[in-house]
Amino acid sequence: MNKGIFITFEGIDGCGKSTQLNLLKEEFDRRGMEYIVVREPGGTVVGEKIRTILLDKNNDSMTRMAELLLFEAARAQITEEVILPALSRGVNVICDRFYDSTSAYQGYANKMGRDLTDFLNLKATNDTSPDITFLLDIDPQTAFKRRSGRDGGEDRIELQGLSYQEKVREGYLELARTEERIAVIDADQPADAIFEQIRNRIWDLTD
Amino acid sequence: MNKGIFITFEGIDGCGKSTQLNLLKEEFDRRGMEYIVVREPGGTVVGEKIRTILLDKNNDSMTRMAELLLFEAARAQITEEVILPALSRGVNVICDRFYDSTSAYQGYANKMGRDLTDFLNLKATNDTSPDITFLLDIDPQTAFKRRSGRDGGEDRIELQGLSYQEKVREGYLELARTEERIAVIDADQPADAIFEQIRNRIWDLTD
Repeated sequence: MNKGIFITFEGIDGCGKSTQLNLLKEEFDRRGMEYIVVREPGGTVVGEKIRTILLDKNNDSMTRMAELLLFEAARAQITEEVILPALSRGVNVICDRFYDSTSAYQGYANKMGRDLTDFLNLKATNDTSPDITFLLDIDPQTAFKRRSGRDGGEDRIELQGLSYQEKVREGYLELARTEERIAVIDADQPADAIFEQIRNRIWDLTD
Repeated sequence: MNKGIFITFEGIDGCGKSTQLNLLKEEFDRRGMEYIVVREPGGTVVGEKIRTILLDKNNDSMTRMAELLLFEAARAQITEEVILPALSRGVNVICDRFYDSTSAYQGYANKMGRDLTDFLNLKATNDTSPDITFLLDIDPQTAFKRRSGRDGGEDRIELQGLSYQEKVREGYLELARTEERIAVIDADQPADAIFEQIRNRIWDLTD
């Protein structure tokens, strides 16, 4: 049996990950392909509890090191409990954020250092790398306007403002320069045009 | 102003840490010495939420890596938010468990490896080492009999049984062979006799 494909979506808040993820689900459904969708942090009982701590606006005293380690703890849990078993059963895994988020947010924007985040990413995932990663790249101003249409207010991390999102974007783009599996997609285009590129990259992989 | 003394208590469950910690508090009170008492995991708003996840018996699917990273996240938070500021104000810090617990439980008994736990301990604490650590060493059978008198049942980690506590004890003793700051105290003695040794070691430090 073939292993499943491991696909991750990355980008700053408001880049359109959810839209693309839903389009991909519909495409997989049309083709009768088995898949699961998970999100980080979260996706497991333990991970969702960690997510609650990470995103709670009241936890504004959280140190950057504690934040980094909590993300990695949730990642360790979902990788071992959900992602690896699915892939080995031949099920495709679509993940809304994975360890590149830690490299961009904690490693680059929070200045924890890529050496540290690379080491922890590797340990938390037992060296499980996505087959392909779509980085939906967008100007933070544009993303912010998109997000302001959403309900529910902003979480602890989204509250850190535009200049923070700029740093995160830089971090992602730096990462994409060295990681071949990362496909940078201009996310300031109509959703269908973006999805066309995503679909083509995935079928290139499966051929 | 002198820095505070950083004192940690370690040992398997039921070794008598709480009793000794209370005797030390009384002694510090009698001498009018400033101190705080903290416990790991926990001791901060974020850390107590992490503690709840770690000790919840329902989280039996927690992976060993997630467990390790959660302990380190709570440790990073309490070190930066509570321990370092207190020590630098000249306040003594008494800690019920610190990173030696991770070395013994996760590193040794859970076989995560000392290289990994040493690295994470260092990162989480920004290389903050206790001035003195009291390892209350006791046979797990004896400790178990003591604990069975307690209310409230056992938590997720205590439920792992006697052979696990044996491994943890071995891990602690191995650690004590290389770490000079660790004072191994035979904890199968009357509480007063144990405390006498603890008190003497602390006054040796402060002289």
